[in-house]
Amino acid sequence: MLAILLFLALHVNSGRLQQTLEQLSQYGRNPEGGVTRPGFSPADKAARDYVMRLMREAGLVVRVDPAGNIYGRREGLVGMVGREKLPVLLFGSHIDSVAKGGNFDGHVGSMGAIEVARALNENKIQTRHPLEVVIWVAEESHPFGGLFGSSAAAGLHPPGILDHKDAAGRTVAQALRDYGLDPARFGEARRNKGEIAAYLELHIEQGGILDQKQIQIGIVEGIVGIRDWTCTAEGFANHAGTTPMDQRRDALAAASRALLLVRQEVRRNPGRQVGTVGMLRVEPGAPNVIPGRVEFSLELRDLSAEVTQRIGERIFAGFREIEREENVEIACTPRVYHAPALTDMRIREAIAAAAADAGFTTLTLPSGAGHDAQSMAHLAPIGMIFVPSVAGISHSPKELSRWEDIARGAEVLYRTILRLDERF
Amino acid sequence: MLAILLFLALHVNSGRLQQTLEQLSQYGRNPEGGVTRPGFSPADKAARDYVMRLMREAGLVVRVDPAGNIYGRREGLVGMVGREKLPVLLFGSHIDSVAKGGNFDGHVGSMGAIEVARALNENKIQTRHPLEVVIWVAEESHPFGGLFGSSAAAGLHPPGILDHKDAAGRTVAQALRDYGLDPARFGEARRNKGEIAAYLELHIEQGGILDQKQIQIGIVEGIVGIRDWTCTAEGFANHAGTTPMDQRRDALAAASRALLLVRQEVRRNPGRQVGTVGMLRVEPGAPNVIPGRVEFSLELRDLSAEVTQRIGERIFAGFREIEREENVEIACTPRVYHAPALTDMRIREAIAAAAADAGFTTLTLPSGAGHDAQSMAHLAPIGMIFVPSVAGISHSPKELSRWEDIARGAEVLYRTILRLDERF
Repeated sequence: MLAILLFLALHVNSGRLQQTLEQLSQYGRNPEGGVTRPGFSPADKAARDYVMRLMREAGLVVRVDPAGNIYGRREGLVGMVGREKLPVLLFGSHIDSVAKGGNFDGHVGSMGAIEVARALNENKIQTRHPLEVVIWVAEESHPFGGLFGSSAAAGLHPPGILDHKDAAGRTVAQALRDYGLDPARFGEARRNKGEIAAYLELHIEQGGILDQKQIQIGIVEGIVGIRDWTCTAEGFANHAGTTPMDQRRDALAAASRALLLVRQEVRRNPGRQVGTVGMLRVEPGAPNVIPGRVEFSLELRDLSAEVTQRIGERIFAGFREIEREENVEIACTPRVYHAPALTDMRIREAIAAAAADAGFTTLTLPSGAGHDAQSMAHLAPIGMIFVPSVAGISHSPKELSRWEDIARGAEVLYRTILRLDERF
Repeated sequence: MLAILLFLALHVNSGRLQQTLEQLSQYGRNPEGGVTRPGFSPADKAARDYVMRLMREAGLVVRVDPAGNIYGRREGLVGMVGREKLPVLLFGSHIDSVAKGGNFDGHVGSMGAIEVARALNENKIQTRHPLEVVIWVAEESHPFGGLFGSSAAAGLHPPGILDHKDAAGRTVAQALRDYGLDPARFGEARRNKGEIAAYLELHIEQGGILDQKQIQIGIVEGIVGIRDWTCTAEGFANHAGTTPMDQRRDALAAASRALLLVRQEVRRNPGRQVGTVGMLRVEPGAPNVIPGRVEFSLELRDLSAEVTQRIGERIFAGFREIEREENVEIACTPRVYHAPALTDMRIREAIAAAAADAGFTTLTLPSGAGHDAQSMAHLAPIGMIFVPSVAGISHSPKELSRWEDIARGAEVLYRTILRLDERF
């Protein structure tokens, strides 16, 4: 009975939000559930068309920037006596996914933001600030570095970004052209400091803390920084039958030692830091040939940049030892570095007040996952609202957030925007 | 000067043999040298057409059995008073390769056998036994198990072999049809005991013993047995940022421990046994996702079947421990088992005498690599002649045997066949 009363009090429409999320889940659907929808793929393109249609139906003025980010604008009060046009309140998320990803990561914040725009219309609310709903392009897409679109908006990409290639050999420039965008205008995706009053993102937690503690809303205190590298181990491919054990230069044995060392160094000291080797490829990869070359990823995350730097240094020192003992060369190339990003105290307070008004329980917690909000932290104060992930499962078809939790998150987003509109 | 005198005394034609090997190296050539010519591939088919043409030019009567093995027959003396038709002296090798393989593994014995047929013609030699040059199909091809063609001739395949699939999902039956063969007649590839008087194979050593010791001809004492498995490690794919280190079920970490354990157990006791994990695939394989599933190969080789069995048992006991500690399930499925095969004393003597007659240095040694000869050991006495591999490199584009060593090997093959023709 309490639940029904609570839901009657929502400004957002839970059923409508669920329906748009279910429709979105059709694009790039896996046979076993969830989606495979990498940025700049046909499945992503189809999902973007759907999302732009929803934005227009919600009365938003849609534009796509030269990096591929989708903005849907709702004007604020302008021309009032004695007032300059105010900067934008920006909120949204992403709709691309990892390979064999779920239906909630990014999708909840994207569809939740559009639902907020619809609810504002229904409640005939005119904000002081202009509002922009944003769908960041290729948040997950690792060939181009994660947070691709929001990094473009924050001007964080290295100079040669347009020539970067994905695993299939496609350059960023070509990927942009495949979306009808002009790579020559890529720099115009950058937004200026001062244009944005604040950035807000609703997202699933992706960890299991809220679910374990039965808390409805997470208030994010900060987003961990990410350092990642692509490493290669170069040994010598040779016949598995005729090469004695003591004469081998086995790149896979060396890489195995390397990745176990990563885990050992990450675990060495207490703390919430994590380290992962998620990708590993073997050449030539035949059962009867000693591996000659292995490529693998290495990723470290923590709220403290010093912690990941120190762990990284220890890991690379350990790699030198493995190189000597295995007679295999290990080389690592840094990829995109994302600094840790703390959220804005005033926005955290606004989220807490909005949740309290609606009668939802809250917990302040860090985000172990990277988010576009950390790109935005370079331009504006940021805040993030988390909803629970059942069993903390994410980046998997088994990823699940309950519809009522998603509706609560969207309601808090709605109420927080109105609070920020008054305060900022 | 000595070298020239020796070469003047050869029955085989070194230059002609080199020319056919160079021509063969064009089929499936890698940009960096060597060939990629898997069995039942277009490159293999083209090479087979070339080889059959060479056989016909050498006066051999060519037939392809229902498994795809190519035989070129040269009749022996028949109809002599008081004599039955004699069984066949069989000799040859294979022309398929591993991915990014070299130009000598199998090729030397195949082209060497055809050169012997040409040299017998030029020397107008009529043998008592019929001779058959054989090109075994898909010796390397692991999707269908190694030694595919010779195993068919020896009747060693399991009942469901026609339904086995390669990595691309093609069944053995389809591969046979792609070569114009009738899978329904596959069983007819089997040869009977008594049909074959002896089997001889010329091959490169693929190890570095002859090259290190500067010996010209290797006399093989036996071929190591091979046990191999395909293993899977099943953990749980999850987000690399939000899943604490102590809550992970990382399939790649477990597989890394497993393959380092393989090496440790193989090295535990002295001996020439080897163990290799040459293939390993990670799912989903993204840098920001904890690996949920890993597939890897496991292969053990030794002249003693007991040694590989004992090591295998220790490895699997160790896997149980890794499973418990990593909360990951490891399961291994055996693939084709090749028993060790000892060569025939009389054939070893004939090779030694043939080499001595020609003035070549010899060494008796085991074969660490598997060969079609071990299939033939189920039907007939076998022997193998090795020529040196420079630096012991094989299954690599860097694989190299010198032309003069190859010619010596072919000469010893020629002389050994004539000795066996008298003795058997």
